[in-house]
Amino acid sequence: MFDLLAFDADDTLWENESLYATAQEKLRRLLASYAPAAQVDDVLHATEMRNLALYGYGIKGFTLSMVETALEVSGGRVSADEIGQIVGFGKSMIQADIRLLPHVAETIPRLAETHRLMIITKGDLLDQQRKVARSGIARHFRHVEIVSEKDREGYAALLARHGVAPARFLMVGNSLRSDVLPVVALGGQAVHIPHAITWAHEEADPPAQGADGYYTLDHIGLLPDLIAEIEER
Amino acid sequence: MFDLLAFDADDTLWENESLYATAQEKLRRLLASYAPAAQVDDVLHATEMRNLALYGYGIKGFTLSMVETALEVSGGRVSADEIGQIVGFGKSMIQADIRLLPHVAETIPRLAETHRLMIITKGDLLDQQRKVARSGIARHFRHVEIVSEKDREGYAALLARHGVAPARFLMVGNSLRSDVLPVVALGGQAVHIPHAITWAHEEADPPAQGADGYYTLDHIGLLPDLIAEIEER
Repeated sequence: MFDLLAFDADDTLWENESLYATAQEKLRRLLASYAPAAQVDDVLHATEMRNLALYGYGIKGFTLSMVETALEVSGGRVSADEIGQIVGFGKSMIQADIRLLPHVAETIPRLAETHRLMIITKGDLLDQQRKVARSGIARHFRHVEIVSEKDREGYAALLARHGVAPARFLMVGNSLRSDVLPVVALGGQAVHIPHAITWAHEEADPPAQGADGYYTLDHIGLLPDLIAEIEER
Repeated sequence: MFDLLAFDADDTLWENESLYATAQEKLRRLLASYAPAAQVDDVLHATEMRNLALYGYGIKGFTLSMVETALEVSGGRVSADEIGQIVGFGKSMIQADIRLLPHVAETIPRLAETHRLMIITKGDLLDQQRKVARSGIARHFRHVEIVSEKDREGYAALLARHGVAPARFLMVGNSLRSDVLPVVALGGQAVHIPHAITWAHEEADPPAQGADGYYTLDHIGLLPDLIAEIEER
C-alpha cells in the first residue's frame, strides 16, 4: 500500500536534541557570572527565533546565536576567550558521534526489504549528509532529502518530484509540527514517535482526536507491525 | 543535442564574491589596531580552510571563521562589541540584494525556451534557496540542486538521478575547480565564464590545451551562439 516510507533523522533515527541541550548547559555555566541560567535560556531562545529566518536550522546558526546571546547577557563584558569557547561548543556538536536510537539498527533494514525508504531532514546540508554517511544505515535509504523547511508545500513538491501520491506516503518522526501535521493535512499518513526532549520550536498540538492517518508509537521497533496492520486494512 | 544545461549560481548568475570581499575589507578595518591587513587575510584564509570540512561552504561558516580570525589576530584582546560587529557583517551578507550579472536577465529566458535548465550551487541551503527565489529568474529553471561539494562523483550521481547522459550535459560556471574540471573529466561539456574576483579556493589550472568539451566565454550573453554552434556540429 505505501509507495514510500520517509523518516525524519534527528531524534527519530539518532540522538540530536541532547547535543543542543549539552551545549546550552555549557553556555549557562560559561555565562553564570553574568546572568542566571533562566535568563541565558530566554535570551538564547529569543535570539534563535529572531535568527531563524536568516540562518535556517542547524548547528552553525545555533553557534552564532550562542555568540550573540553571550554578548547580550554579559552586557558586552564577555571575553574573547569565552567567545572562543562558545565557537568550540558548536564544533563539538558537529564532530559528535552518531548515536542511533533504540531499535533503529534492526528496524530500518527490516523495513527496507519491503519498502522504499527515504530520509527527510532539516539542518545544515554538509552536517546532515555527514551524519547520514556515518550512521551505518545509509545504504537502506533510496533517497536523502535535506530541506530548509518541512511544511505542507514542501512535502507536496517533494512527493510530486518523486512521483508518489500523498495517500501512498507514510512519514515517521518525532516532531508534530514538522513530521505529522503537514503530512496529514496533505492527505498522507504520519507516525509520531515522541522523543524525550523536543525543541520548543517543534512543539505543536496533535491532530484532532480521531483524525485520519495519524498514529503514535512509543518507539520505532513497533513500526513494522503498525505498517502491516495499516496495509492489511 | 544537450538534454540539460546547468548553471552555477554565485558569480555566474549573480554577484557573490564581492560580498565576501566587502566583508573581508570591513574585517581588516575593524582589526587594524591589532594586526596589519595582510595578516588578517592570511589568518582568515587559513581559518576558512581548516573549518571547511566542518562547516562546508556558505556565509554562516564564513562568519564563524571571521570570529575566530578576530580572536587569533588580536591575541584575545578583541572586544565583545567588535565580535558583535563581525556577526553583523555576516548578516548583511545574507540580507544583501541579488545583483544579476550582465546579460543574465536576457540570456536565461532565451535558453529556457529551447533547453531544460538547472542551477547547481554550493553553500548554505536556506541562503541559496532564498537567493534563487529572489533572483527574478527562478521560473526558468526546472531544477535547483544545492550540493555540499561539486566533484566528479557528485556530478555523476546528480546526472544519474536526473537520467541525463554526461555527453548530453553542459555545465556553465566561473570556477574551473568546481564547474569545469569535474564535468570534463566525466565526459560532459563545460563553459568557463571567468568572474572578476575568484576565491583562492576555487582557482585551478584549466584543462589541457585542446581538451574536448571545454570552452571559455567572456560573458553569458555569448552562450546561446556557442550552444547553437556546438549542437550544429
